[in-house]
Amino acid sequence: MDLALAEATAAGARGEVPVGAVLVGPGGHVIAKAGNEVEARNDPTAHAEMLVLRAAAEHLGNPRLEGCDLVVTLEPCAMCATAISFARIRRVVYAAYDPKGGGIDHGPRMYSQPTCHHRPEVVGGVQAQKAENLLKDFFARLRT
Amino acid sequence: MDLALAEATAAGARGEVPVGAVLVGPGGHVIAKAGNEVEARNDPTAHAEMLVLRAAAEHLGNPRLEGCDLVVTLEPCAMCATAISFARIRRVVYAAYDPKGGGIDHGPRMYSQPTCHHRPEVVGGVQAQKAENLLKDFFARLRT
Repeated sequence: MDLALAEATAAGARGEVPVGAVLVGPGGHVIAKAGNEVEARNDPTAHAEMLVLRAAAEHLGNPRLEGCDLVVTLEPCAMCATAISFARIRRVVYAAYDPKGGGIDHGPRMYSQPTCHHRPEVVGGVQAQKAENLLKDFFARLRT
Repeated sequence: MDLALAEATAAGARGEVPVGAVLVGPGGHVIAKAGNEVEARNDPTAHAEMLVLRAAAEHLGNPRLEGCDLVVTLEPCAMCATAISFARIRRVVYAAYDPKGGGIDHGPRMYSQPTCHHRPEVVGGVQAQKAENLLKDFFARLRT
């Protein structure tokens, strides 16, 4: 999570919403890491989670990332939660809860839907305060 | 929709699930078209809808595609439905309904969620039979 928080901090410094993610392979090594790049790439899908899923799948030569874990600083939205399920991620570990935009423990609760065919293990709230502070500071600066 | 069906047919011929999409700009011209490329790209997020959203946003230099419409041969899944909302798409026109994997009129019904902040107009069932036949033939061939 420290690596993901560093990616989030770097994203915030680039003017992106400060969210960072890390993809960990079955052996415990980091396969990919990224921060949010929606504005820099002009890509509405370029959330940190999507970028590490795509990078890891390309690296491993397989769209299905069996045995891999995803660590991210904010509860994934429904887009990312669904992509994580498609990629067969084993475990999602996230920091801050997101009652307004989260798609795992809020809103559509994607992994509780009967149409969800792969349900990763989920651990939320890990180092949540640090991730929340990054987001709060970012949006406070935007408003001034 | 004819263009999207042609993209779906081409995707099926490449061994991908036959789904195709077209992104239409505010002036009515086609900005992007694509078929599913999950297997070819080793990318779990490479659904036809995601590819045209990304291509159009890159082309227009803006992650928000105000006034644009998306035409696709199958009801979008929750990942694509959410990305379509993030991209501020004006109208989604789709062909076949997808009770097992759809995210707009089935499953999580993304645009009915209180956490959804942009709700496109949706028209489903346009040339549904042609799109269904493509999918049925594809999966029938897979099983033989």
